[in-house]
Amino acid sequence: MIEKLKQLKSKLAEVSDLYSTAALLGWDQQTYMPPAGAEGRGHQLSTVSTLAHIKFTSDEVGRLLEDLKGPAAELDPDSDEARLIKVAARQYEKDTKVPPEMVAEFAQVTTMAHQVWQQARAENNFEKFQPYLEKIVALRRRYADLFAPYDHVYDPLLDDFEPGLKTADVQTIFNALRPQQVALIQEISSSPQVDDSFLHQPFDENKQWDFGVEVITKFGYDWKRARQDKSVHPFTTNFGIDDVRITTRIMPEFFNPAFFGTAHEAGHAFYELGVDHAFSRSPLAGSASLSIHESQSRMWENLVGRSLPFWEGFYPHLQEYFPSQLGNVSLEAFYKGINKVEPSLIRVEADEATYNLHIMLRLELEIALMEGSLAVQDLPEAWNSRMHTYLGLTPPDDTQGVLQDIHWSSGMIGYFSTYALGNLVSVQLWDCVNRDIPDLTGQIRRGEFAALLNWLGEKIHRHGAKFEPQELVERVTGSKIDPNPYMHYLQTKYAQIYGF
Amino acid sequence: MIEKLKQLKSKLAEVSDLYSTAALLGWDQQTYMPPAGAEGRGHQLSTVSTLAHIKFTSDEVGRLLEDLKGPAAELDPDSDEARLIKVAARQYEKDTKVPPEMVAEFAQVTTMAHQVWQQARAENNFEKFQPYLEKIVALRRRYADLFAPYDHVYDPLLDDFEPGLKTADVQTIFNALRPQQVALIQEISSSPQVDDSFLHQPFDENKQWDFGVEVITKFGYDWKRARQDKSVHPFTTNFGIDDVRITTRIMPEFFNPAFFGTAHEAGHAFYELGVDHAFSRSPLAGSASLSIHESQSRMWENLVGRSLPFWEGFYPHLQEYFPSQLGNVSLEAFYKGINKVEPSLIRVEADEATYNLHIMLRLELEIALMEGSLAVQDLPEAWNSRMHTYLGLTPPDDTQGVLQDIHWSSGMIGYFSTYALGNLVSVQLWDCVNRDIPDLTGQIRRGEFAALLNWLGEKIHRHGAKFEPQELVERVTGSKIDPNPYMHYLQTKYAQIYGF
Repeated sequence: MIEKLKQLKSKLAEVSDLYSTAALLGWDQQTYMPPAGAEGRGHQLSTVSTLAHIKFTSDEVGRLLEDLKGPAAELDPDSDEARLIKVAARQYEKDTKVPPEMVAEFAQVTTMAHQVWQQARAENNFEKFQPYLEKIVALRRRYADLFAPYDHVYDPLLDDFEPGLKTADVQTIFNALRPQQVALIQEISSSPQVDDSFLHQPFDENKQWDFGVEVITKFGYDWKRARQDKSVHPFTTNFGIDDVRITTRIMPEFFNPAFFGTAHEAGHAFYELGVDHAFSRSPLAGSASLSIHESQSRMWENLVGRSLPFWEGFYPHLQEYFPSQLGNVSLEAFYKGINKVEPSLIRVEADEATYNLHIMLRLELEIALMEGSLAVQDLPEAWNSRMHTYLGLTPPDDTQGVLQDIHWSSGMIGYFSTYALGNLVSVQLWDCVNRDIPDLTGQIRRGEFAALLNWLGEKIHRHGAKFEPQELVERVTGSKIDPNPYMHYLQTKYAQIYGF
Repeated sequence: MIEKLKQLKSKLAEVSDLYSTAALLGWDQQTYMPPAGAEGRGHQLSTVSTLAHIKFTSDEVGRLLEDLKGPAAELDPDSDEARLIKVAARQYEKDTKVPPEMVAEFAQVTTMAHQVWQQARAENNFEKFQPYLEKIVALRRRYADLFAPYDHVYDPLLDDFEPGLKTADVQTIFNALRPQQVALIQEISSSPQVDDSFLHQPFDENKQWDFGVEVITKFGYDWKRARQDKSVHPFTTNFGIDDVRITTRIMPEFFNPAFFGTAHEAGHAFYELGVDHAFSRSPLAGSASLSIHESQSRMWENLVGRSLPFWEGFYPHLQEYFPSQLGNVSLEAFYKGINKVEPSLIRVEADEATYNLHIMLRLELEIALMEGSLAVQDLPEAWNSRMHTYLGLTPPDDTQGVLQDIHWSSGMIGYFSTYALGNLVSVQLWDCVNRDIPDLTGQIRRGEFAALLNWLGEKIHRHGAKFEPQELVERVTGSKIDPNPYMHYLQTKYAQIYGF
């Protein structure tokens, strides 16, 4: 067995190298690549990704996994070896089920669809995008059918982002959450409103950059193993446990995007930097799921970065950076401003209280599309009507409505719910951290984050992709993903801010 | 035949994608990679390069090349198709001759040797490096023997950088050049010396960057298809004809390295940007050889960038950039300063008049090592004695002598002569440009470079790797690589500057 495991690891390491290489091709494309490089980059990405897929789904890997099945059953099921084999076998089974022609067709359709979506969004022309989205929905349904029988046609899609999670699980969670979120927003909107106009004024871009860098350095961002660059859409990527990269974007007249974006991406990065080095170049050197990943980013962005203790410590320093902008804004006013709740049309600009409703809307529409109970051509109307029900708003056009997100044009149906689940998990974990580190609030106020980062490293990060998301959350918190801690957090926080 | 050629092109395109990807891995390593990323990067580079090698040397490529041999013989031998098959077949034959174990051993030895060389250089300890260099020489000899029979054991090494060129050719050229270069330097050193102290003072780094960018933009550097970054050792790389990247390094207290380095690398970049798009993702999308490549960089660096007409146009503007440093330095003094000749120990700092002698010394030592007439342990002494003969200098230590260059530690024996050959070719081409564009001097004075760049594009760049270096030089200039135009250029230039 030892010899076969070694062979398997060596094959998987090569595959991992290729995926890391593809990630670098992607990072460069979004940071430094000159515009004319796009065509060549497309070829390179396609060649490298295809090779990675071919290498991973090779008969040789299949034989090794098959041969290791018996011996693995003898191992401690929680051992790294047993889990490596399990995670690799699970992925192998999924990847080999998909015929190469379908992979190629999907890549081709989504490449086209993405381009058309960009035009359609710019021109506010859903009809232009409609036939491409129809193709994507049809292709995703064919994909799901490869994994029949299933409880729900949406299950196989969700599973790609949240291993082991079922559509019914998410629906149960969201059904419990939705009325409470709607009620909270109504309560907030009938309270005296908060002023955040001081956040919308010129903030020197270099100073914004420097302040963000200073804060994440305090958080524990390891610049020997990580870096930050600029890109239009912020993201985190890695080419191994010791080379993790975040990006940020700076808006010259709005404070929030750069700072909270940097804190958010740093949270993602800590996860990737914290994986056990023993998992290097293996399928375990990933994350449990996207929701667990998002729980980390949202924790640093919101539970730390939008908290009162954090700004009790850091606000005087921020005022030194921006004396003319913030010198006369009190800590309390600043804290309320960065936590202003206001139902809005655009998901990525949404505050903590309204964010999940954007997600629920998308999940419901995706499920309806996949079930066939909603036709793509009826999607804009369905979007707008739900938008009105949940947030009391009606998009003036599709650009600010159904066309706003990149996901569907890239074929990523099944992704959205991970954002909301990440919010929920972040607070479940936060409650545990606070139990284990009673002085956490004081530490945050003093700018000490080592204990927090160590806790996360120990409980979450180091395990990489070893556990499935529900399993991991249960191991750490004692229960599966649960909406109640998050609702409790929101209610407490906003009752204080809005005084109800 | 059309079908087989299509298949071959498709295979070669994949290989090209992998080499481009490896180039990106290398570029990132030298520009932005966080230090801890080195280990993972090594794995990625090795995996991608190995795959490229495996794909290129596959039986399938071999069969296609074999099947195409007959039909190709019917084609116009100068057609793109005939040349593509010829260049690919030539490379295939070379690559398949080398057993994979030798490739692996060479990679392993040079990786180690490079690390040890860095230490040895820092510690001025040649003995530490000696056993590694011995291994490299032995491995290179075994490599050469794969290509026996040869005229000279050094031929197969030279051929890797200069297809078709023989050791005897280079020796003939250098033997004609050496006495004239030595005589010129003696003449210069017995003339009144030039002052360049004003070049050694603080120059704002951002302004240095901006001036360089402004100049290469005037040259015609296409920022939609190319970029510039910073690195410790400047270089040019590309990931396709439409994504070419140069780097520069800025010394805060010395003007020359950034400016002339930027002009030099831009010259390399113009070559890579100018290749016919029909050669995209094929082995023809390269250069004829390193000497032709160097002829382009040296032309923009020296024949343009160190010329009087260029500074007649640009010097007033440079003075605006650096009024306190250069406001009181006359054009004539500046021109003489940037062309100061002074025998020195370090090749990369050498001026135009002494540079080639550094190269000849290295070539002679390499040939002697490969022939076995010089033992590695006797190398420092041989280095120092030649240094004294050619340049009248004796290195105070091996760090400033035999340990100064990276090439041998990386196994690149056979490379050095391409630098000197590039100088020679640059002037051969320059004479032709001046014949074809009688107003070239006036254009340069006026900051107009389009005609020059077009000429180079038409005569050199667009052909990529289609012709061998001697063939290309002969097609353009009417003669093979010839040292006389270069000597004539040097003598005229320095007679004027040093007044003899």
